[in-house]
Amino acid sequence: MTGIDDLPIRDELRGKSPYGAPQLDVPVRLNTNENPYPLPEALVDRITERVREAARGLNRYPDRDAVELRTELGRYLTRTTGYEVGAAGVWAANGSNEVIQQLLQTFAGPGRVAIGFEPSYSMHGLISRGTGTAWISGPRHADFTIDVAAAREAVAEHRPDVVFITSPNNPTGTAVDAETVVALYDAAQAAKPSLVVVDEAYVEFSHRPSLLPLIEGRPNLVVSRTMSKAFGAAGLRLGYLAADPAVVDAVQLVRLPYHLSAVTQATALAALEHTDTLLGYVEQLKTERDRLVAELLAIGYEVTESDANFVQFGRFPDAHEAWRQILDHGVLVRDNGVPGWLRVTAGTPEENDAFLDAVRALMKERSKKEQSA
Amino acid sequence: MTGIDDLPIRDELRGKSPYGAPQLDVPVRLNTNENPYPLPEALVDRITERVREAARGLNRYPDRDAVELRTELGRYLTRTTGYEVGAAGVWAANGSNEVIQQLLQTFAGPGRVAIGFEPSYSMHGLISRGTGTAWISGPRHADFTIDVAAAREAVAEHRPDVVFITSPNNPTGTAVDAETVVALYDAAQAAKPSLVVVDEAYVEFSHRPSLLPLIEGRPNLVVSRTMSKAFGAAGLRLGYLAADPAVVDAVQLVRLPYHLSAVTQATALAALEHTDTLLGYVEQLKTERDRLVAELLAIGYEVTESDANFVQFGRFPDAHEAWRQILDHGVLVRDNGVPGWLRVTAGTPEENDAFLDAVRALMKERSKKEQSA
Repeated sequence: MTGIDDLPIRDELRGKSPYGAPQLDVPVRLNTNENPYPLPEALVDRITERVREAARGLNRYPDRDAVELRTELGRYLTRTTGYEVGAAGVWAANGSNEVIQQLLQTFAGPGRVAIGFEPSYSMHGLISRGTGTAWISGPRHADFTIDVAAAREAVAEHRPDVVFITSPNNPTGTAVDAETVVALYDAAQAAKPSLVVVDEAYVEFSHRPSLLPLIEGRPNLVVSRTMSKAFGAAGLRLGYLAADPAVVDAVQLVRLPYHLSAVTQATALAALEHTDTLLGYVEQLKTERDRLVAELLAIGYEVTESDANFVQFGRFPDAHEAWRQILDHGVLVRDNGVPGWLRVTAGTPEENDAFLDAVRALMKERSKKEQSA
Repeated sequence: MTGIDDLPIRDELRGKSPYGAPQLDVPVRLNTNENPYPLPEALVDRITERVREAARGLNRYPDRDAVELRTELGRYLTRTTGYEVGAAGVWAANGSNEVIQQLLQTFAGPGRVAIGFEPSYSMHGLISRGTGTAWISGPRHADFTIDVAAAREAVAEHRPDVVFITSPNNPTGTAVDAETVVALYDAAQAAKPSLVVVDEAYVEFSHRPSLLPLIEGRPNLVVSRTMSKAFGAAGLRLGYLAADPAVVDAVQLVRLPYHLSAVTQATALAALEHTDTLLGYVEQLKTERDRLVAELLAIGYEVTESDANFVQFGRFPDAHEAWRQILDHGVLVRDNGVPGWLRVTAGTPEENDAFLDAVRALMKERSKKEQSA
């Protein structure tokens, strides 16, 4: 039988494994930051209506420029941030991963450098490497906030072509303030003209306002977003960005023609018609997130301040062993490889109760062991 | 206002334009090889049913490995080629462009070389360059068949990592025989271990059988396909490949996680349930394609032998001027930049009549001019 290593693949791929969280069949899955609320039936109806219409013209290529969708995404951003964004300043693709890949193909790639402040969304580094971009792992403080002085130094030293700032940060939940973004943008531009990507995948769950208005007067600043979390549509794979229209023109040089299918465009447009209902679920999830934080602290865990729909908790002498023990209670959380810490997604109240029961039991066992030791 | 050139984009992108045929609002559009037959209403119903089901779980990520879809694509290939292909030997992505991009990211990229025999599908070269792969334009005979001796020489000289063979070829319609593929595969492997990609986007329209069975015993041979043409689903963006399962494992090292949305998977599965009806349309289109060839010859044009759902015709002293004149008659065909030739997609009988009227008028004007000169 032929194996991967018998094939003429690129050397740097040898011995690698595909990225992805374990997909385990477990009663309570709180490991991939999905929204636990299924779409309301009225929206399911609207999706089928719009997809029926799209299916009737499916023999034709989709609108290559997705103008209607970009217009509606711009309206949503304008309404929720107060900063006016038109279709010309919005771009959409199959998940924010594809948005990030297109940005890296345009602004980074072979011979160029990208930096992120880790731990952060691991796809930034993976897609950088996948596009031939050198990846620099920048520092954070022990409390997972960005160490601005150290970050500026790293930017001055490595002169990156692309800088990733994730707010709220995944997997820590940490929000970034506007002053930090401006400081890093200025430091990056001082080193060399470079793109700064603010990844706001989880911003709808934040206590703080969006950083989107910072694109004003900053043509090299991009804000990336997704419909996977706040819109409860991880299965749709719809990511987008807002930036100066010149950035949108630039990514079109590398996008695959007709990259966004007619059914994806139709489904996303239907979801955008139901924004108010979906943002209602976001409020419920914020309440549940805050409850998770309070209860975890009450049980005796440490928690990283969270502006997202998930909570980083710890600390464990062996996080992976703790992950396995929680799984034994039928609850799947995420081990992101941050030593001592795990991440739990805010689910429904019932799912969160099951999770809290599991980590309460874990803490009891630990106390027992410590007493008997 | 900021322009693209004010941004820190990669140097090789400067001055470039996005790829894509002009999208003009014209009565008869025969320029992008779309299937002119809308999906039957029973299939539209089935798509909405399956999408409704998918929409109910849209808050969750889609099946990252698209196992059900790959299984059904394998069944379709097995049934229509007689060569057994299972899910493990099939991979799917957002259009065959994304399939090709993933193959190039895995097997080519910076410091590596890809070759195609041009004129051919221009995205092979564009995506090669987009992934940092050096692109070599190999030769064809004057009748647009592959010049096997010259192609073998080019392969020996350039030692490519990826070889593209398009059959039927776009934009010429030329099919490639199995002996040519085997000769080029052997020549490529003799030069260095390398991937050979047979692009069969239009194979369902061919007089010849699929080249798919050649993957037997050739782990470095890949056949790429699409649902855009024979399945009448250009708007769906569903491309796929068949190959040794090791190739499928390898592309998963570079695929973006959850790249294929739940609505895309649901829609493609619905279409696969209606394969027989859709292949019936293919038969109608083959008849129309043959009629186009016969009529074009009768009018006095030269025609390249076609195994696809389009016909290359000429020759014109100025093909772009002829393209414009046909457009003046309300018919949009494609100028692919092949000197002297244009390409017309086989449409409905009515669309083809309109096209034939237009080129008949063109020929009359030409004769008049020649007589008066």
